[in-house]
Amino acid sequence: MKMGETRTLAEYVVSSDWDDVPADVRHEAARSLVNYLGCALGGSADPAVETAIRALGPYSGPPTSAVLGRIDRLDPLHASLMNGISSHVYDFDDTTPQNYIHPSSPVASALFAYASANAVTGRDFVQAFIVGFEAESRVGNAVYPAHYDAGWHITGTAGTFGAAAAIGRLRGLSVQQMVWALGLAATQAAGLREMFGSMGKAFHPGRAAQNGYSAALLAEAGFTAGERGIEGPRGFAAVQSAAFDLSKVTEGLGTDFNLRRNTYKPFPCGIVNHPTIEACIRLHHDHQTDAAGIRAVRLHVAPLVLDLCNQKNITTGLQGKFSVYHGAAVGLVRGRAGIQEYTDDAVNDAAIRRVRESATATGDPSLTEDQARVEVELADGRTLRQAVEQSLGNIHRPLTDAQLDAKFRAQAVLALPEPRVDAALSLCWRIAALADVAELIDASVPAGRTVPSGVLQS
Amino acid sequence: MKMGETRTLAEYVVSSDWDDVPADVRHEAARSLVNYLGCALGGSADPAVETAIRALGPYSGPPTSAVLGRIDRLDPLHASLMNGISSHVYDFDDTTPQNYIHPSSPVASALFAYASANAVTGRDFVQAFIVGFEAESRVGNAVYPAHYDAGWHITGTAGTFGAAAAIGRLRGLSVQQMVWALGLAATQAAGLREMFGSMGKAFHPGRAAQNGYSAALLAEAGFTAGERGIEGPRGFAAVQSAAFDLSKVTEGLGTDFNLRRNTYKPFPCGIVNHPTIEACIRLHHDHQTDAAGIRAVRLHVAPLVLDLCNQKNITTGLQGKFSVYHGAAVGLVRGRAGIQEYTDDAVNDAAIRRVRESATATGDPSLTEDQARVEVELADGRTLRQAVEQSLGNIHRPLTDAQLDAKFRAQAVLALPEPRVDAALSLCWRIAALADVAELIDASVPAGRTVPSGVLQS
Repeated sequence: MKMGETRTLAEYVVSSDWDDVPADVRHEAARSLVNYLGCALGGSADPAVETAIRALGPYSGPPTSAVLGRIDRLDPLHASLMNGISSHVYDFDDTTPQNYIHPSSPVASALFAYASANAVTGRDFVQAFIVGFEAESRVGNAVYPAHYDAGWHITGTAGTFGAAAAIGRLRGLSVQQMVWALGLAATQAAGLREMFGSMGKAFHPGRAAQNGYSAALLAEAGFTAGERGIEGPRGFAAVQSAAFDLSKVTEGLGTDFNLRRNTYKPFPCGIVNHPTIEACIRLHHDHQTDAAGIRAVRLHVAPLVLDLCNQKNITTGLQGKFSVYHGAAVGLVRGRAGIQEYTDDAVNDAAIRRVRESATATGDPSLTEDQARVEVELADGRTLRQAVEQSLGNIHRPLTDAQLDAKFRAQAVLALPEPRVDAALSLCWRIAALADVAELIDASVPAGRTVPSGVLQS
Repeated sequence: MKMGETRTLAEYVVSSDWDDVPADVRHEAARSLVNYLGCALGGSADPAVETAIRALGPYSGPPTSAVLGRIDRLDPLHASLMNGISSHVYDFDDTTPQNYIHPSSPVASALFAYASANAVTGRDFVQAFIVGFEAESRVGNAVYPAHYDAGWHITGTAGTFGAAAAIGRLRGLSVQQMVWALGLAATQAAGLREMFGSMGKAFHPGRAAQNGYSAALLAEAGFTAGERGIEGPRGFAAVQSAAFDLSKVTEGLGTDFNLRRNTYKPFPCGIVNHPTIEACIRLHHDHQTDAAGIRAVRLHVAPLVLDLCNQKNITTGLQGKFSVYHGAAVGLVRGRAGIQEYTDDAVNDAAIRRVRESATATGDPSLTEDQARVEVELADGRTLRQAVEQSLGNIHRPLTDAQLDAKFRAQAVLALPEPRVDAALSLCWRIAALADVAELIDASVPAGRTVPSGVLQS
């Protein structure tokens, strides 16, 4: 009888060897972690994180874990939740386009919480990240697209498996314990797309990190679960997806690494706006465009952009993420589209609003979602033109390491004193060589100092 | 535009009035709580509870809540989880046959944890229990049977709504906050039937209690969720059920109480075995049957019994729950079928095994699942016969209050010193009149004394 998918995956997770991880995969893991950590720092002061800490901090166990980017300490399970919220709250974290998962947040959020409370070498940390990423991606690949189309936020569901695998790996679970951990992940896999547009969306990778972490702890202690959590007739795939292909859980395990298909966003907004924004940023840099000099903006975009991002009369930063006009305006006026361009203040900035309102968009079926053409009519009578053929950040034109550096810095300054940003960045690139990941975590909290959450709570 | 189901339910939960609860519903609430508390005490020393406390106790926050039946104290969220596991682990808790939910465990597990850490009057407690029971039942009714048939453990999914509603009610949430709490419940609703036969099954009502509780805390603090968690196009009903009827969420709210349809098991095993067991217990009491005097046992049962409970060659208590032969044997030999009859020891008891192995069963399509006929051939040549036409504990022949007393006592002695059992029982019947439910909780832990979990952990 063929071994079940859950057990085969469990065997891989517990026994995969560092020496078998190709160099390019190790480097992509570092890129993913740099991108992740920047996002976690950038989102760490968002109201969603503040609110969750205010609500649940008083229930935290012994505060042995740092929350990335914050002075608070919580127990590792609650720290996992908060790291998951902060790293996803701006929708700026990574994406694997093949399955729409934001893969790093559930896995790395649990791992950083774990490594804050326990001594972990960089190599063990990165190895656990890689197997967690694989477990999550493969479970997701098996059920995508039916599962996502039905309304599941696949980052929340598949992410639970990833966190369980990663923490279970670090805890040294046996194959049987890992089977239970994956079963307990399966039976907690949750997250509805109905939450999109609310704090509930960022809650999903946070809860996935926390629940996967506790699945590993329970399994280690001998808390049993069904043996076929993924493939059983009442297991994850059958119950949560109208169609699925279980071969994707196991095929190519150990040779075909999903990390190679990870992508990183240059801008914290709906990905279909990206080529338009890029064109506008180029115009700003080439022609020093500003609000006073712009008479009208004409966008030619893929028709899907108008389905998803056709809002012009907006007042909040969250709405701005889904307005191609706002993306064009910040690109032309400020020459950048970072987190600061998607605040309520930025959306209500008079100059940006004027340019946004001067813009029109036309759907053009000859353009792909990675393409855009922009025309800007200036007050002095000139017309500027710019086209993007392949959007920055997609899998064919990935962000360079230097671009990831810039993205990291722009977010990290929101949480760390400026002089410490590069120290954290440099440690993160070298993570696999660290004797203890605590060194990086200490560098990723304000002033290297943290206090139990209770001390800050009234 | 018609108000959405989530908001309508939220309005009911926050505003329903004690004076509008009919007397019979109040009494059924007390019966449910007596049955619940007995089950929680009976299961409180089970290895599933011990294991979960060993795994997660070290992560507990300030230990302000008692775990029912135990000396341990944990934070209220972890106490909710443990109460949920203990009260369901023997499958002896209540059932609403219309939707297969075990309704009290998720709701009462959270409420007892809450009331252990916060002063709550008995009336507020019972009112919160009633609205939580309604929220859970109505969400379940809307998606049953498609949701259950697909493989969801509906106690875990619907239970999350019940716990959120109950705790949100006690916390005094506004309608908007309750909408978010129900949304955060929807997006955490989980639990797969693939876990049946493992500790994972009892984990479901525990996690439902814990997650519903935290949904209420988050919503209270302003953590937002989708506004249509139940009825939205990517909400609970559409995503987790192939067919559903949303009118069942709201129709008859405040007049049609699901509590009236609650049922209580007389025996901690598969419900289809119940008429056989009852017939055998009657034979024991009428004829003092014992193992030595029995030559053969012939059971005539509904055909479904043979589909579900046709195991004879068994070695564990858990298997015994799904063996109609074992049920017959303990009834005939011991004259009872309580928790002690479903231990590994009981299943391996030589006298019980001999009678079990002497038994045969015939499926008879003329019998309903509430009926059974038993023939016992004695060594002295006589043949005894007994039939049950309507199984004890079903909705047409409910356990009497006195039978609930006996069930409570038989379980409570496993956790409490015998002299204190009746004190706890009496307080539980009078729960709605208590000035502070803490009085009942103090009576429901060993010697009235508890200690932080960490003190007991190594």
